[in-house]
Amino acid sequence: MNRNEITERIVVARLTKGLSWQQLADAIGKPVLWTTSALLGQHPIPPELGKVLLEMLGLDDSAVPVLAAPPMRGGLPTAIPTDPTIYRFYEALQVYGGAIKELIHEKFGDGIMSAINFSVDMQKKPHESGDRVVVTFDGKFLPYQWVSVDS
Amino acid sequence: MNRNEITERIVVARLTKGLSWQQLADAIGKPVLWTTSALLGQHPIPPELGKVLLEMLGLDDSAVPVLAAPPMRGGLPTAIPTDPTIYRFYEALQVYGGAIKELIHEKFGDGIMSAINFSVDMQKKPHESGDRVVVTFDGKFLPYQWVSVDS
Amino acid sequence: MNRNEITERIVVARLTKGLSWQQLADAIGKPVLWTTSALLGQHPIPPELGKVLLEMLGLDDSAVPVLAAPPMRGGLPTAIPTDPTIYRFYEALQVYGGAIKELIHEKFGDGIMSAINFSVDMQKKPHESGDRVVVTFDGKFLPYQWVSVDS
Amino acid sequence: MNRNEITERIVVARLTKGLSWQQLADAIGKPVLWTTSALLGQHPIPPELGKVLLEMLGLDDSAVPVLAAPPMRGGLPTAIPTDPTIYRFYEALQVYGGAIKELIHEKFGDGIMSAINFSVDMQKKPHESGDRVVVTFDGKFLPYQWVSVDS
Amino acid sequence: MNRNEITERIVVARLTKGLSWQQLADAIGKPVLWTTSALLGQHPIPPELGKVLLEMLGLDDSAVPVLAAPPMRGGLPTAIPTDPTIYRFYEALQVYGGAIKELIHEKFGDGIMSAINFSVDMQKKPHESGDRVVVTFDGKFLPYQWVSVDS
Amino acid sequence: MNRNEITERIVVARLTKGLSWQQLADAIGKPVLWTTSALLGQHPIPPELGKVLLEMLGLDDSAVPVLAAPPMRGGLPTAIPTDPTIYRFYEALQVYGGAIKELIHEKFGDGIMSAINFSVDMQKKPHESGDRVVVTFDGKFLPYQWVSVDS
Amino acid sequence: MNRNEITERIVVARLTKGLSWQQLADAIGKPVLWTTSALLGQHPIPPELGKVLLEMLGLDDSAVPVLAAPPMRGGLPTAIPTDPTIYRFYEALQVYGGAIKELIHEKFGDGIMSAINFSVDMQKKPHESGDRVVVTFDGKFLPYQWVSVDS
Amino acid sequence: MNRNEITERIVVARLTKGLSWQQLADAIGKPVLWTTSALLGQHPIPPELGKVLLEMLGLDDSAVPVLAAPPMRGGLPTAIPTDPTIYRFYEALQVYGGAIKELIHEKFGDGIMSAINFSVDMQKKPHESGDRVVVTFDGKFLPYQWVSVDS
Amino acid sequence: MNRNEITERIVVARLTKGLSWQQLADAIGKPVLWTTSALLGQHPIPPELGKVLLEMLGLDDSAVPVLAAPPMRGGLPTAIPTDPTIYRFYEALQVYGGAIKELIHEKFGDGIMSAINFSVDMQKKPHESGDRVVVTFDGKFLPYQWVSVDS
Amino acid sequence: MNRNEITERIVVARLTKGLSWQQLADAIGKPVLWTTSALLGQHPIPPELGKVLLEMLGLDDSAVPVLAAPPMRGGLPTAIPTDPTIYRFYEALQVYGGAIKELIHEKFGDGIMSAINFSVDMQKKPHESGDRVVVTFDGKFLPYQWVSVDS
Repeated sequence: MNRNEITERIVVARLTKGLSWQQLADAIGKPVLWTTSALLGQHPIPPELGKVLLEMLGLDDSAVPVLAAPPMRGGLPTAIPTDPTIYRFYEALQVYGGAIKELIHEKFGDGIMSAINFSVDMQKKPHESGDRVVVTFDGKFLPYQWVSVDS
Repeated sequence: MNRNEITERIVVARLTKGLSWQQLADAIGKPVLWTTSALLGQHPIPPELGKVLLEMLGLDDSAVPVLAAPPMRGGLPTAIPTDPTIYRFYEALQVYGGAIKELIHEKFGDGIMSAINFSVDMQKKPHESGDRVVVTFDGKFLPYQWVSVDS
Repeated sequence: MNRNEITERIVVARLTKGLSWQQLADAIGKPVLWTTSALLGQHPIPPELGKVLLEMLGLDDSAVPVLAAPPMRGGLPTAIPTDPTIYRFYEALQVYGGAIKELIHEKFGDGIMSAINFSVDMQKKPHESGDRVVVTFDGKFLPYQWVSVDS
Repeated sequence: MNRNEITERIVVARLTKGLSWQQLADAIGKPVLWTTSALLGQHPIPPELGKVLLEMLGLDDSAVPVLAAPPMRGGLPTAIPTDPTIYRFYEALQVYGGAIKELIHEKFGDGIMSAINFSVDMQKKPHESGDRVVVTFDGKFLPYQWVSVDS
Repeated sequence: MNRNEITERIVVARLTKGLSWQQLADAIGKPVLWTTSALLGQHPIPPELGKVLLEMLGLDDSAVPVLAAPPMRGGLPTAIPTDPTIYRFYEALQVYGGAIKELIHEKFGDGIMSAINFSVDMQKKPHESGDRVVVTFDGKFLPYQWVSVDS
Repeated sequence: MNRNEITERIVVARLTKGLSWQQLADAIGKPVLWTTSALLGQHPIPPELGKVLLEMLGLDDSAVPVLAAPPMRGGLPTAIPTDPTIYRFYEALQVYGGAIKELIHEKFGDGIMSAINFSVDMQKKPHESGDRVVVTFDGKFLPYQWVSVDS
Repeated sequence: MNRNEITERIVVARLTKGLSWQQLADAIGKPVLWTTSALLGQHPIPPELGKVLLEMLGLDDSAVPVLAAPPMRGGLPTAIPTDPTIYRFYEALQVYGGAIKELIHEKFGDGIMSAINFSVDMQKKPHESGDRVVVTFDGKFLPYQWVSVDS
Repeated sequence: MNRNEITERIVVARLTKGLSWQQLADAIGKPVLWTTSALLGQHPIPPELGKVLLEMLGLDDSAVPVLAAPPMRGGLPTAIPTDPTIYRFYEALQVYGGAIKELIHEKFGDGIMSAINFSVDMQKKPHESGDRVVVTFDGKFLPYQWVSVDS
Repeated sequence: MNRNEITERIVVARLTKGLSWQQLADAIGKPVLWTTSALLGQHPIPPELGKVLLEMLGLDDSAVPVLAAPPMRGGLPTAIPTDPTIYRFYEALQVYGGAIKELIHEKFGDGIMSAINFSVDMQKKPHESGDRVVVTFDGKFLPYQWVSVDS
Repeated sequence: MNRNEITERIVVARLTKGLSWQQLADAIGKPVLWTTSALLGQHPIPPELGKVLLEMLGLDDSAVPVLAAPPMRGGLPTAIPTDPTIYRFYEALQVYGGAIKELIHEKFGDGIMSAINFSVDMQKKPHESGDRVVVTFDGKFLPYQWVSVDS
């Protein structure tokens, strides 16, 4: 059973068992966004955590070593997402991506926000005009540096 | 001169004049990310603000009415961005998009984060392991609601 | 059994049982367009309604929790639809999409028609030159608003 | 000057002259959505109307015969629209397209909504929870019919 | 068993049984091009005809209701066909599509050839320089007409 | 001036001069569909005919040698046509392409309809339910033959 | 079992049986390139030859009629081949395709090399700087000819 | 003037001057297919040859150094060629590419035909059933070899 | 079982057995990057090595002949890789590909780095600012040479 | 003049002036691969270096501020490169990308090679079987780390 097949079973098992992502995250003491992403096939899950999760989900623990390996990442079924909840983030990139780039350069110089030394958080924040989804992308700034092993 | 041509001139004029995006934003009293995005062709710019900006940039104010119209949005030259600074956000979507969707549903129910009633902010935050780029997407939660004009 | 597999079974079971979409919608007291879309995998179906529908279709109710979860939306098998009945709507977008955008801006200002706070209706209307398909897209106007949680 | 170049000039001239699409439509006694679409390059404009419009826009009337020819239609710059105002209609097709197809077949039999014998209308409708954009696609039902010239 | 799976079985069964498309068409009294297209999954097949065809092919008649439903049309495995026999028609469109469009407009005015009120025929015609494939597309002319239900 | 630029000028000049494609074809004694296609950049035009056509169109005859060269063919701006008049032929291929292939094989054996030894015709045919567009693709049958120069 | 599934089995069976393509071709007295291409699903295989081949490969002869039908051709898994051995031919087309076209026109006039009345050969030729792969595409020249059945 | 612009001018100048590719090749003593390909922008042209060619074409010799630089290769305007004369080679790859690969491996072992140590030739060969286009791809066989600088 | 299916089993078996790629490479005395690539389906594996590897992995040795055949190469699931670890190499190509090309030409003349007479190595190198991934692409320079079998 | 236009001029000016990339790099005391990449539009060039380079190239120094700004990176004209010299690196990624990923994970753990804290070098290395192109990608290893500004 490869990683994709395990992911499919996890998705169905979670719904059938009536478990929330938060409950799964709490069981292993990890941030919920990391846990969810990992269970959706985007991060390796250490064996001892994998065992706990598979047991909660009622799945066979033969999947533990496959869960523990760094996966082939990339979770969108199409290059441009079709699901509206995900698409809005792609749209924000279309509208604000160029401006974010300009301002990263203006405030930090030439470089990028790391997506590896990185965390993402999602909060529900009350607001007088209706609750807000606040998603924070938090990555280390990496300046373009021409470094080589011999220098 | 259409909006794309005006945007091209703005980009070059800003560099030649040595103006920062922050200076332009301050001059019109608007958030810098909004201002940058608007000057890059993603938002209409009210005439009185357009005049101020064009003057600072040394550009002809005949562009004012074109700047004031809602533009055809979408600022990425390719569906999948090639620029590394922008790409990292697309990558974050590939890796965390599915998880963000799941947790929006878990915390809010079925629906989306609006990208219209929305703001985005970018901060430089110090951290012991190096400065961090913190980008906050902040949109109103919109629940799926089957509403019609007659109901 | 994941959502796609359930959808496939629903499609075949409906035909085999000889049930109309209207009958299924009436059984759960929901608009027929919503019901059809949900059964085709585009909306979560509350458990008590899911049970009714699965029973009518002669399908196992183990699918209830999967039906009840917000699905990964996006029901077109290709980015540009090939089916003529669906394609005509895409064509209308090619021919009239730009004009609709201009007039939304002219009548409402800068913003969009929500596809979330939204309903769609389809009516058969008699006309002297032949019956007409009248499809109404009815969404809340959302003005571009730069709102943040702290403002 | 080909049709695309004329369209670009019309777009800029309208903004510079401060004319609304409604004013242009009223001047030629045509529906505003048709007029806008035609001026955006999607319909031929009869010479006598073309003359009126070009004059209002302050453009040379040498464009009249080009405006009067059936254009190469298709107004989206990319197959999947990036502009949010237009994208929502594409999204509605992703989510509801399959259901609309099913119900056209259920109510009319096998066939399509014509996009040629067709009109589209957009209305601003008040609603207690906020104004609504109501777009109506109204096309003649065309049943699949195997007709040939000799039968 | 969904429509695609039924189509696959029909294709193999026809070859194994050694039946020609003509024989299948004759058995149900329908044009052979319509019959072939329908059996390849592009048209609904009325139940009484579906029964006849499935029996000839030695297939189970549980497929009758699925065959009777309007299918999701679109039979090319890739947007640009790779099979040379089919590709030549796509190529003809590349080379002559623009001219056909111009002449439809010149002879009929602005509008299209319907692909719904439509038949297609293929004949083998002798010619001194070798037999010819003569394919006739025969569709009703539909003029662009701005009709609405209220007009 | 390359072939594309010449084509653009021809298209505009024809409209400005008020010439029909038929008039242009008659002037050179060629079928109208061939002439139109050639003037749209899809066929070489012999110098003596090129001269006649350019003169009628009021264009400089320096274009004669470029018109006389076999062009880089392929006249659709996108792989899938967006113009409705052209799209219907693509749609017919999606719906009937597979069936046409099967019947060519059934009537002729393995092979193709040539798109080179080929002509296409378009006729306006009256019909009680409305005029019909009848397009005939007429190509030599080419059987798959494994021929080599030495055999 | 459809043609694709048969092809997959042939590929594995050949390797397991340790048969060369040449041995298979010799057994049926056909050119090896034709035989290989046919066994890879690109040509119909006459029943008497199909039987011989299936027997050599240890496969069931129920596949004979499917092998005997003209297949849906097109053997590249992606439009641009990824396999280096195949890609080099695509690359040659990128670099020399335009020149080949020009010289076909210069030597033959306007027309094409047929890919139907066609054979291809591959030879291993010794050369002082290393053995060479010599692939010969040999197709009948087809001049563009505007022929119709009635002319 | 960059390489693409020079190529465009060469193409038009050759036609206007009435020069054949063969004449141009003869003037510089190079194979005609190489010369044509180089003039179409696919190979660097040594300065002394570039001068000769530009003079024959009546073009300014300021282009000599640009012609002399290795160009950005890749001469097809679309990934899948639309021009029929070029397309047939792509089609041959679709139908015979897999078989050519298999036989290169069978006769040479694992490796490729080089497209760099390579020549291509096109001949007009008479045949009783009509002249044939014979195109020979002739590349050095390169075996997969795991070589490194230190081994 | 075709090559893809064997690869999938190898991937899972390696994780389940807890074997490192290095251990597998050592067992057959081959470079680890070559071994890994081969086990991922990109190189043929000689039968005697295939047997050793399959046994270590606990897989049936019926796969030996399939592993020994040159595979259909190309291991990325999408043309643009989504996995961040692989994507960085694609990104480096976007940013430095043009420069690498220019400098190969400047130092070697017109030609390429072979990807066939080629090896790749990956080393972990310590550096004061953190360990570095050093990947070396080492390919024979192949000058563009117009060689034919007869020359 | 935007960055793309400046790049085009630089490319032509360098050839016309007969300057090598090495000479340009030496003049500013920077690595030649960095310099070439920067001049091809992939890196900002500090004003004092920009001035030197523009002067050497005989270009106006009004371009200095545009050269000094971080550019929109991404230098390949198509997602899959067509130029053979560049393509070989893409091919290496297709064949070895998966293996490189596996071994980065095996030697370093889960993470990536940075393409930002990164240098690339190209050397000409002699070898008995012919000179070799040795390209070294040297990037800092970045482990996946779930870091946030508050932790």
